[in-house]
Amino acid sequence: MSHDINSIPHRRYNILTGEWILCSPHRTKRPWQGKTEKDTTPKKETYDPSCYLCPGNTRSTGDKNPDYKEPYTFINDFSALLIDSPVATQENGLMKAETEVGICKVVCFSPDHSLTLPLMEEEDITKVVKTWKKEYAELGSQENINYVQIFENKGAIMGCSNPHPHGQIWSQMSIPTEIEKKSKHFKEYWDKNQSSLLGDYIKQELEAKERIIVENEYFVALVPYWAVWPYEIMIAPKKHQQHIGQLNEEEEKAFAEILKKLTIKYDNLFETSFPYSSGIHQIPTDGSDYPEWHWHMSFYPPLLRSATVKKFMVGYEMFAGPQRDITAEQAAKTLQNLSDIHYLKQ
Amino acid sequence: MSHDINSIPHRRYNILTGEWILCSPHRTKRPWQGKTEKDTTPKKETYDPSCYLCPGNTRSTGDKNPDYKEPYTFINDFSALLIDSPVATQENGLMKAETEVGICKVVCFSPDHSLTLPLMEEEDITKVVKTWKKEYAELGSQENINYVQIFENKGAIMGCSNPHPHGQIWSQMSIPTEIEKKSKHFKEYWDKNQSSLLGDYIKQELEAKERIIVENEYFVALVPYWAVWPYEIMIAPKKHQQHIGQLNEEEEKAFAEILKKLTIKYDNLFETSFPYSSGIHQIPTDGSDYPEWHWHMSFYPPLLRSATVKKFMVGYEMFAGPQRDITAEQAAKTLQNLSDIHYLKQ
Ligand SMILES: O=P(O)(O)O[C@H]1O[C@H](CO)[C@@H](O)[C@H](O)[C@H]1O
Ligand SMILES: O=P(O)(O)O[C@H]1O[C@H](CO)[C@@H](O)[C@H](O)[C@H]1O
Repeated sequence: MSHDINSIPHRRYNILTGEWILCSPHRTKRPWQGKTEKDTTPKKETYDPSCYLCPGNTRSTGDKNPDYKEPYTFINDFSALLIDSPVATQENGLMKAETEVGICKVVCFSPDHSLTLPLMEEEDITKVVKTWKKEYAELGSQENINYVQIFENKGAIMGCSNPHPHGQIWSQMSIPTEIEKKSKHFKEYWDKNQSSLLGDYIKQELEAKERIIVENEYFVALVPYWAVWPYEIMIAPKKHQQHIGQLNEEEEKAFAEILKKLTIKYDNLFETSFPYSSGIHQIPTDGSDYPEWHWHMSFYPPLLRSATVKKFMVGYEMFAGPQRDITAEQAAKTLQNLSDIHYLKQ
Repeated sequence: MSHDINSIPHRRYNILTGEWILCSPHRTKRPWQGKTEKDTTPKKETYDPSCYLCPGNTRSTGDKNPDYKEPYTFINDFSALLIDSPVATQENGLMKAETEVGICKVVCFSPDHSLTLPLMEEEDITKVVKTWKKEYAELGSQENINYVQIFENKGAIMGCSNPHPHGQIWSQMSIPTEIEKKSKHFKEYWDKNQSSLLGDYIKQELEAKERIIVENEYFVALVPYWAVWPYEIMIAPKKHQQHIGQLNEEEEKAFAEILKKLTIKYDNLFETSFPYSSGIHQIPTDGSDYPEWHWHMSFYPPLLRSATVKKFMVGYEMFAGPQRDITAEQAAKTLQNLSDIHYLKQ
C-alpha cells in the first residue's frame, strides 16, 4: 500500500499480548481545558523524620527500620497477599473464586530520602538490581510462590503515597493475566520458529534504529512499536534470557547504566520528577523452563503534554481498547533529542 | 471447602472476559497518605457563556451550537477517528499495523449546563436513551462502521474536560479488544448450553439477591461478582437482547429509571457529583447475528474511600492484573443502604 499510515488513524498490533492499540496522530492539536496535576518539586531533605521508609524511623505497625546503608527490603505492612492463607476454591454456578497466597515486600532503593533512580549513582542502582535478583530467587523458591512481580509506582499521580525512593514486589501462587497473555505469544512463536519473539523483534529494532532511546553492549531501551502510554519504554537484554537471575556482574552494571540514562531522559522531558509505573516481566517461578520467554522491563508513564497534563485512559480505553495521540516514532524522537545530563545538574 | 474465602485474599473469575481479579478484603484498614483529588462542588449556572457545549455557543472550530432543547449530537471537533481515512495495512517483520476508519460524536444530554444524569428528569433521560438508540442504528448502518462504542467520562478525574452533561460515541471499522474477549466467552457458552451466559448469571444473581442495587420489571443493576473498580456496577436487561435497538418504549423508560436511581445512589455515596466512566457493550454492527450476546452497560467509578481518595490501578495492576480492597458484597451492601433521594434534594 502506498499510504503513509503513520499520519492517519491506525491500529498497531502488540506481538507480546496479541492486543491492538489505536493511534490518532492528527489529534495532538486538541486543546486541553481539563484536569491538570500538581507539578512535583524535587525533595531537598536527605532524611525526613516523618517518613516511614527512612532509616531508623518507626513504621505505623511499631516496627523500626534499621539504620540501613544499602537497599533495604521488608514485608509490606499492609500486604495485599498473605503467605499463610489457606488454599481453597469456590464454585457456585457462574461464580468462581479461589484463594490467593503470596508475599508482598517493599524495597527501599536508598537510605537517602531525597533521591530517585535518575539521581542515584550507577553503582547504587546496581545494588538495587542485585536486590531484585536476590528477592526474585528467594521469593521464587518458596512453596506456593509461582510468580514474582517486581514494580515501582513513582509519583503521587501513580498512587505512590511516599516519595522516599522505593519499589515493591508482590509474589503469588497463580500466574497473573498479563504474564499468561505474553507466555502464550512467546510459546506460539518459539514452537513455530525455534527463536525468541522478543529477541527477533529487538534485532529488527536495532536495524531500524528509529525507536531506540539508549543502548549499550547488553541492553536496549526503546519505545515499542505498539506503545500504549505516550512515552512508554521497554528495556530488554540483547541476549536471550528468561529472568534477571541470569544476569552476570557485567550485565547487572549494564542494566543499571541503562536505567540511569533512561530515567534521566524522562526527568528532562518535562523538567520534573517524571512519574511512571515500571515493572519486570519474566518467567514464573513454578519450576518449569519456559525457554521461549525473554524477560524485559517496561515503563508506563502517564504524562502527555507537560508536567501537569496527563493522558487519561478512560471511557473509550476502558470499554474498547487503549488509544494514543502521538506515534511511537514521535515519542522516540523527542526522547532521543533530550540531554543525557539531568536538568538539575546542568 | 470450609473456608469463607470472602474474608481472605482471593481471585475471582470474570465469566465475560476470562480474566481474574485479585481481592484483598483485609486491606481496607490501610492508612492513606497519598494523593487526594479535588472535591467537585455542584455547578449552579444552567448556562455558561464560555462552555462550548451550551446551546447557542460557538465552538473552537467556529461552528455554532443550535439552540437545542433535547439531546444534541454532533461530530467531535477533535475526533480520534476519521471516516475518510484510506483502508490499508502495513506489515514489516514483527511490526504490524492497519488504518482505522471511524466516526466520533459528542452527545449533549441536556441543554442545562448545571445538570448530570442523576439530577435530570426521568423523561429527559429517556430522550438520551432514544438518542443512543438512534445513533447506534445510524452509525452502525454506515459503510465500514462495524462497532459503535457509546460511553460517558464523568468528572475531571475521569479526563472529562467539560462539566456540561455529555457523553461520546466512537464508532469504527475493527472490533475492539474488549468486545472480542466478551464475544468469545458468550459464544463458547452459547454453543455449549444454547443459553445466554449473562442471562443465566443474572438469574443466579436475582436468586442470590446479595449484589443487586436496583431493579425493575425489565432491568437489574448489580455489583458484578468479579467487579474490578470499588463500586463498579453493571446494568443489564432481564430479557435476552443483543443491542439497545431492541428496546421498546416501555423498556426505554425502564432503562432511564434504573439509570436515574443508580446514579442518585452513586452521588449519595460520598455526597459528591460521583465520577465514573460508563459504557455500553453490545453486538458489532457488521451485519452478523451474534445470538449469543447479551448487551449491558457498565460503570467504572474510581473513588474508593471518599470524594477525594480514589483507587489507583498502577504498578501491580498494570503488570499483573487488577486488584481491589473491598469485596463486591461489601460494596453492594454500602450502595443498597443509601437513600434513593439525591442528597442535594433531601
Ligand atoms: O475526548 P475527550 O473528552 O477530550 O477526552 C477524554 O476521553 C477520551 C476517550 O475516552 C480519552 O482518549 C481522553 O484521554 C480523555 O481525556
Ligand atoms: O501499596 P501502595 O503503594 O500503598 O499502593 C499503591 O500500589 C498498589 C499496587 O500497584 C495499588 O494497588 C494501590 O492502589 C496504590 O495506591
